[in-house]
Amino acid sequence: MSEFDEALALRDGEFPGSYAVDISEGWTIGGGINGGLLLAVMAKALSQAVGASGHSAPLALSAYYLTPTRPGPAMVETDIAREGGTTSIGSAALVQYDEVGRREERIRVTGSFTDHDKLPHEATSRLSPPNLPPLEDCVGHEMAPDAMPNAPLLERTDVRFDPESVGWAMGKPSGRGLIQAYLRLADGHEPDPFVLLFACDALPPVSFDMGLPGWAPTIEFTVHVVARPAPGWLRVKHYSEHTAAGHFVEDCEVWDSTDTLVAQSRQLARLPRTP
Amino acid sequence: MSEFDEALALRDGEFPGSYAVDISEGWTIGGGINGGLLLAVMAKALSQAVGASGHSAPLALSAYYLTPTRPGPAMVETDIAREGGTTSIGSAALVQYDEVGRREERIRVTGSFTDHDKLPHEATSRLSPPNLPPLEDCVGHEMAPDAMPNAPLLERTDVRFDPESVGWAMGKPSGRGLIQAYLRLADGHEPDPFVLLFACDALPPVSFDMGLPGWAPTIEFTVHVVARPAPGWLRVKHYSEHTAAGHFVEDCEVWDSTDTLVAQSRQLARLPRTP
Repeated sequence: MSEFDEALALRDGEFPGSYAVDISEGWTIGGGINGGLLLAVMAKALSQAVGASGHSAPLALSAYYLTPTRPGPAMVETDIAREGGTTSIGSAALVQYDEVGRREERIRVTGSFTDHDKLPHEATSRLSPPNLPPLEDCVGHEMAPDAMPNAPLLERTDVRFDPESVGWAMGKPSGRGLIQAYLRLADGHEPDPFVLLFACDALPPVSFDMGLPGWAPTIEFTVHVVARPAPGWLRVKHYSEHTAAGHFVEDCEVWDSTDTLVAQSRQLARLPRTP
Repeated sequence: MSEFDEALALRDGEFPGSYAVDISEGWTIGGGINGGLLLAVMAKALSQAVGASGHSAPLALSAYYLTPTRPGPAMVETDIAREGGTTSIGSAALVQYDEVGRREERIRVTGSFTDHDKLPHEATSRLSPPNLPPLEDCVGHEMAPDAMPNAPLLERTDVRFDPESVGWAMGKPSGRGLIQAYLRLADGHEPDPFVLLFACDALPPVSFDMGLPGWAPTIEFTVHVVARPAPGWLRVKHYSEHTAAGHFVEDCEVWDSTDTLVAQSRQLARLPRTP
């Protein structure tokens, strides 16, 4: 079983629609667990909850992050609004219990699920795949060990950055607010719609390239998965066009090896505190 | 009281966190009630539910549309996850009861609320206000009565379209997937953060300008309100850059009279059925 599938492995919880999961330390960076990975866990639970409909893949998901998730046991509590029809829709809460048994809600998600094989495959776009240099000219995180210290998350992914978008790792952010890279899972697990949820949040925050180091907590994160990805490397582009009110918007496009836009996301995040 | 405030008027419901509202026919078009207006109603309820926190204005909201809302009585049932801190976060369901008392959920929303006055006012952007002609050179809906038949919604708003983005109303869609206009409420009510939620969904669907007439149902709609709008005309730009899997993405920017980007939204909608 791939590491990604292990991270999404669920057991039936105590009541119908609830699922127990072990949140692994393997997807942490900077002291926190990757938000896209947690979204994928919750999407997996929702997908199982609507299983009878055949709508097994996420189409659109919106997540609001409440409190930091800790490694260890967690429950995903689902509440399905509609099962069947064109899409199935439901909500989920990721919860953990503290040492005295108090319930703490970590993330709240609503989403729409579908069967991508039943949807038309045509696509039209003004958008183009990220203009990345050839793979062999891109650089991994080991090129800047101080900026990207070994963290478990980095061992789970194989990311090759466009050299022009990692100046920040050498103390020279480009100021463009653009980070783009090839991405695949380190153990070779091919991309699927759940991997795309993770891919939309798998790169460093684009605020780094805006000259703003430090933690940029996500307020809200919405992903649209518009196609099932082909096998092979993904290309991920994170960019930001706007900051306001102490927040920034991080847009993401994920393209597969056939030059198909497979997922788009947008998150509203808090700007890092200026030291 | 303005028509908009009347539409958002709430009474306490039967249990804590529930609010009764009368859904007016005044905001209908094409047989349906404007989704942005319904989002504003739900945001108002959430804002009241977290009232003690001072977080009275929406910051980010994500809505999933389940079944069509009908004019008449409805309830907004709120479930607050966190009140206080930097932002307050909660969910809401808009529900109606059919003639035999069955509960039907119309829309499910999660959102984050704030006090915009407590947030920094600085903004940086690569985005620019829509390049609209002067107001007097823009055109109202009466210029194409067949394409935009009198509908109650059109009486509630004063919209002046860029003539280049309403070719579709004369049978000549530009194919660019862009509709932009000046917008204000017809009764003069100045914009506020709740009006912005409506403004992001107040123009005709951008699919019209893609040569695709017909109803384009919204699957998911996320709005970020990043600043309190100044009084005066809003400028709204709807555009689409991508279609796939039988869906299209409609992006929206709302700018106020001081050239400030006050709200951004993105919706995933189903492409109209080809006749």
